[in-house]
Amino acid sequence: MLSQIDEEMRRRHVQALMILGETTLADPNLTYVVGGTLARGGVYFKRVGHKPLLVTSILDLGTAEKWGRVKQVETYSEWGLEKLVRKYGREEAYPRLLSEICRKNGVNGKVTLYGRNDLALGTYLIDKLRRFNVNVSVDKSPSILESARETKDIHEIEKLRSVARKNGHVIETTTKTLGSLKRKRGRLALKGKRATIGMIKSMISSELAAEGLGAPEGVIFAIGASSADPHNAGNPNYEVKEGKLIVFDIFPQAESGYWSDITRTYIIGRASKEDKQLYDTVYEAQEVAMDWIRTGISGEQVMSKACDVIERRGYRTIRDVFQGKTTGISDGFIHSLGHGVGLTIGERPNLSFLSKQPLKTGQIVTVEPGVYLSGYGGVRIEDTVLITKSGIDILASVDKEFEIT
Amino acid sequence: MLSQIDEEMRRRHVQALMILGETTLADPNLTYVVGGTLARGGVYFKRVGHKPLLVTSILDLGTAEKWGRVKQVETYSEWGLEKLVRKYGREEAYPRLLSEICRKNGVNGKVTLYGRNDLALGTYLIDKLRRFNVNVSVDKSPSILESARETKDIHEIEKLRSVARKNGHVIETTTKTLGSLKRKRGRLALKGKRATIGMIKSMISSELAAEGLGAPEGVIFAIGASSADPHNAGNPNYEVKEGKLIVFDIFPQAESGYWSDITRTYIIGRASKEDKQLYDTVYEAQEVAMDWIRTGISGEQVMSKACDVIERRGYRTIRDVFQGKTTGISDGFIHSLGHGVGLTIGERPNLSFLSKQPLKTGQIVTVEPGVYLSGYGGVRIEDTVLITKSGIDILASVDKEFEIT
Repeated sequence: MLSQIDEEMRRRHVQALMILGETTLADPNLTYVVGGTLARGGVYFKRVGHKPLLVTSILDLGTAEKWGRVKQVETYSEWGLEKLVRKYGREEAYPRLLSEICRKNGVNGKVTLYGRNDLALGTYLIDKLRRFNVNVSVDKSPSILESARETKDIHEIEKLRSVARKNGHVIETTTKTLGSLKRKRGRLALKGKRATIGMIKSMISSELAAEGLGAPEGVIFAIGASSADPHNAGNPNYEVKEGKLIVFDIFPQAESGYWSDITRTYIIGRASKEDKQLYDTVYEAQEVAMDWIRTGISGEQVMSKACDVIERRGYRTIRDVFQGKTTGISDGFIHSLGHGVGLTIGERPNLSFLSKQPLKTGQIVTVEPGVYLSGYGGVRIEDTVLITKSGIDILASVDKEFEIT
Repeated sequence: MLSQIDEEMRRRHVQALMILGETTLADPNLTYVVGGTLARGGVYFKRVGHKPLLVTSILDLGTAEKWGRVKQVETYSEWGLEKLVRKYGREEAYPRLLSEICRKNGVNGKVTLYGRNDLALGTYLIDKLRRFNVNVSVDKSPSILESARETKDIHEIEKLRSVARKNGHVIETTTKTLGSLKRKRGRLALKGKRATIGMIKSMISSELAAEGLGAPEGVIFAIGASSADPHNAGNPNYEVKEGKLIVFDIFPQAESGYWSDITRTYIIGRASKEDKQLYDTVYEAQEVAMDWIRTGISGEQVMSKACDVIERRGYRTIRDVFQGKTTGISDGFIHSLGHGVGLTIGERPNLSFLSKQPLKTGQIVTVEPGVYLSGYGGVRIEDTVLITKSGIDILASVDKEFEIT
């Protein structure tokens, strides 16, 4: 939560932090502190125990004031950027401006930097700032911002719940459409034409738009053998057919910047006994994991419980890799159980064998076991849940229907 | 162009470059070299004069091979990431992996880093890599990648033309809808309800989705006084009314990662004499700028020509700030004339008073003069053009209709 920043700064003996970027696009730390997006980004400056300052372009002044999270908003021009450009050139003007902000705010101790920027700029800035006597220090992961963002406040939880519900509507509409496709000898038709993944995806895009959501990372709608590759988005030219595993993983973002992440696996028509076993395994792994998740348990412990289920059913899991039995597996449960969701689609905390920290109330994570058989297909079931003191609260209740009959 | 990377490396005496990130989302440099998006990103390594290597997650292996731009794709596991994690912990494993890639490829000279990453990770990586004897060097702006990306090859031009055309369709459909709104005493109705910006934007979103485009940065549809703030996206609750200036700036991104950027200014109904003067000024400024743009002229020269027109018509321009006459202006032509468009919506080259370099054939830029009157409204007209030897080629021809009568 935003209110934890001072505490996290004190714990690391950081005197000031700066979050900077020329856009807030996909820059969760900058979006987080500003309260929304700024087309041209800005510089957020915070001295420990003091109120923050935001320096931005005159073009974004109105927007920054509208978000209202930072009360003190000033422009680059007010900080003399043009003068610095004339004197030192465009490139050096920027680190000079940053060091000026530190100096005028009486900062002489540790300063940490954040904001998604290209490392070419990063290398230049860090070296220059140090030359200008700014004590740029390393903030190891989890950084102050990652730590603050890891638990969500009630406003964030409401935003995340809202995206999840809208996402749930899109999934249910899609499921209904899949169920209504005309079937003829295993082939499916939509509005008189052979149904392709491309057509279904285009329908999903319109549904997302109608809910006010975008999908900057795409949508996974993979059929048959493609579904065995967890990140195969699905070939738009492939036909949607009966009796094939379909992994539908949809992770849209709302204008608020918050994401949702839900996966359903279907078969249109009847599933084979093998497919049912695969599905039941993943379903049970998710149920067991959800039963275990609560404040205080570690991601590793939950991951372990999910692997127990999947291994007992005869499939391999990535535990073999962590135990050094093999260097990699391509079949079975080949990824981790879940990840945090917020202003990014993958953030702390994780539910993996590397997650030793106890989970905390207010964290929001995906629970997404999957089992994949190369050349055949895969099953993944995913929901996003809020961690509470005694268990979990699923952000959106979305039907789990395996066979669309 | 991608083929210029070796030349740019040699010119800067860089022995190797690495582009890294945990996602390609909004990471144009990584997307550029990979040829598409990878959900979990990767490490792109290139030694000067050698073919590149891409190290990625097993989950993205299939996708990386599908893009096909890098022939040699290997996994983190093959590079022993898990072993490094067990030995050194999760955090230190990553810079160790990177230094291992440099070592195994015989790199002992200058190495430059790229890829959009949070500066907290950046600071850590740069310090660690230097400790592991990787000679991390500054690549000042324009970086190797910025320089390569600045001119587009024919495949990129085709992708950019395709986005621009689709964007043009969306604009024309929107204009048609605006023209068809039922009018009654200055008020407008859509499907029997009072037309609001929110309703128009929702229609625009659906049109974008139907064209396979997304708008991760939003859409500007600002009316009346709001249109005087170039980055005011428009309040969804405001009514769309007759006789008010409407700035409609739409900058969608295609799945290919490429963007389009076009702005039209309208008035529904009849424009006042003042509004017409404002519009004609901006229209003429754009025409004059487009007449001047060609290979060899500088962005500054073109900006200057646009300012000449606008000042002659009695409005202020940002030239006053660059000439030191004032520290900032809030009315008139308050921004620069244009910017490059490609895998980002704002990249090199710029058409501003700071742009001394001659423009090159194959660059793609916006031409977008605007004049704004605080508290009243603004006019901006923008097209995206390809710079050719003798002039320009407008990527998409889109109607310029000021009065929607």
